[in-house]
Amino acid sequence: MSVTVLAPATVANMVCGFDVLGFALAEPADTMHLRLTDTPGVTIINEDDFDLPTEPTRNVAGGALLALLREAPGVGIEVRINKAIRPGSGIGSSAASAAGAVVGANALLNNRFSKEDLVRFAMFGEEVASGVQHADNIAPCLYGGVTLIRSTAPLDIVPLPTPPLWVTVVHPQIEVKTADARAILKRQVPLPTAIRQWGNVGGLVAGLCLQDYNLIGRALEDFIVEPVRSILIPGFAEVKAASREAGALGGGISGSGPSIFMLSQEEATARAVAAAMQAVYDRLSIAQFTYVTRMNTEGVRVVRSTEQVEIPLF
Amino acid sequence: MSVTVLAPATVANMVCGFDVLGFALAEPADTMHLRLTDTPGVTIINEDDFDLPTEPTRNVAGGALLALLREAPGVGIEVRINKAIRPGSGIGSSAASAAGAVVGANALLNNRFSKEDLVRFAMFGEEVASGVQHADNIAPCLYGGVTLIRSTAPLDIVPLPTPPLWVTVVHPQIEVKTADARAILKRQVPLPTAIRQWGNVGGLVAGLCLQDYNLIGRALEDFIVEPVRSILIPGFAEVKAASREAGALGGGISGSGPSIFMLSQEEATARAVAAAMQAVYDRLSIAQFTYVTRMNTEGVRVVRSTEQVEIPLF
Repeated sequence: MSVTVLAPATVANMVCGFDVLGFALAEPADTMHLRLTDTPGVTIINEDDFDLPTEPTRNVAGGALLALLREAPGVGIEVRINKAIRPGSGIGSSAASAAGAVVGANALLNNRFSKEDLVRFAMFGEEVASGVQHADNIAPCLYGGVTLIRSTAPLDIVPLPTPPLWVTVVHPQIEVKTADARAILKRQVPLPTAIRQWGNVGGLVAGLCLQDYNLIGRALEDFIVEPVRSILIPGFAEVKAASREAGALGGGISGSGPSIFMLSQEEATARAVAAAMQAVYDRLSIAQFTYVTRMNTEGVRVVRSTEQVEIPLF
Repeated sequence: MSVTVLAPATVANMVCGFDVLGFALAEPADTMHLRLTDTPGVTIINEDDFDLPTEPTRNVAGGALLALLREAPGVGIEVRINKAIRPGSGIGSSAASAAGAVVGANALLNNRFSKEDLVRFAMFGEEVASGVQHADNIAPCLYGGVTLIRSTAPLDIVPLPTPPLWVTVVHPQIEVKTADARAILKRQVPLPTAIRQWGNVGGLVAGLCLQDYNLIGRALEDFIVEPVRSILIPGFAEVKAASREAGALGGGISGSGPSIFMLSQEEATARAVAAAMQAVYDRLSIAQFTYVTRMNTEGVRVVRSTEQVEIPLF
């Protein structure tokens, strides 16, 4: 028996919702083929050109699968990975590997684990990638749409209603180290600034729930993290201004960068935003990739199984 | 022509939503009778026993009406006030006077002003009360239900969907000066604490929009203001623990105190919470008033007009 899964890219740190709000993209997505093997343990086969480690303890999908197998002893899983999400892009490449792997493995195991279990397993994959177990990208990757991490201890993930939205992402070819992006943050926030930020968090969540695009746009403003982190991304201010000019509702840094995302209500706007972003980086002579895509609203998807026509995910 | 209005009590600083979330109570409410007079200006007549100033510039309703009359020159308004909301209780007594007065005056003037205008006028009333123009109580008093103040400059009020909820309020007979309650706040917040707080703000807004009572309960936690302000309210920790024990979803300090509010899903629970609160203050030999009430979902209400059967509010 084997399954194929599609694991979507994700945006964490959704503007004002630093560390709590994220969402999934319809594209790009990693494709992974998984099958049960007779030999207990994890086998990783990379079918892309990213040259990631195949030793399971050093591979993100491997770390997640090893965590799952600790609760499914004796099982052997082989995973062939075709990554489409570039590592280091800031759109949840490692989360897609981790979440995709455990959803695929769970499908092979008759979905014996809950979604909460899968989040837990996948966070071990994130630990391989960054040394830290976090669910910022795992949550939207597994649930789809916009997710709120209300609390990390205990972990409390709230999937939010997600109105139709288009996303434009630009990935400029520069490196932003997550460690640098962390180190640059101010450790103390003035209370009035924190209040403005949570006013926007409340506004953004309300805008999503009420499908109020104007409110979503007004609430997409970050007074705390973006002002310091955007310094690490050349062209950030220009991209933001040009995107708003082109009609975007708003947006900001994806994860800890370097990718920048913008939300739009219409596809045509999202494409105009992409052109505006490209123009900025062309002027700066910085190569970039851009994506224009809808939000993904279902999370990791099992697209093919040799023994079942359709596998209910959860 | 004359009108009678009912202006509800309100709770500002709704737990995690310090300075941004508030809501209106069905009871208690102030009753105000307003009529047009031939003499331009404002006449205040107090019909209760609170001995508040009748000089318009020193009276909260007067301050709000004078602001309105600056945009309706030549008009004369008399207001007779029967306050049921005790001044200094922390449940929006001054906001009720200000908001009730301008809604009544607007009804007499064929609703020539928008709701946004009325908020603006009523904030001058708050300035008479506390020296500061703020909308923390004005917004829920005028809109009803739970309101989010996403931003104060520019003022952006978002009325939220409000599921059926019962409210228990205890008003212990102690004095908490707003100035003291302000001075005790810490001016800087550690970033991780701010993140936990806005996770809860997002969770509370989502819980209200999705009618998810369990989520509302989980999100009703304040890591920033309550730990310092509750020191000013004897019995606070005991009231909170006893209320949760009695089945309340959660709650906290109303405004800057001394009142404490708790939300419940059922009336019976709300009454059990009231008994638990009373028991705490009886043990401490502190006199108190308690209220068990629904949320008010319509804001200030025009209940009677001599010349029209019903006045559309806005």
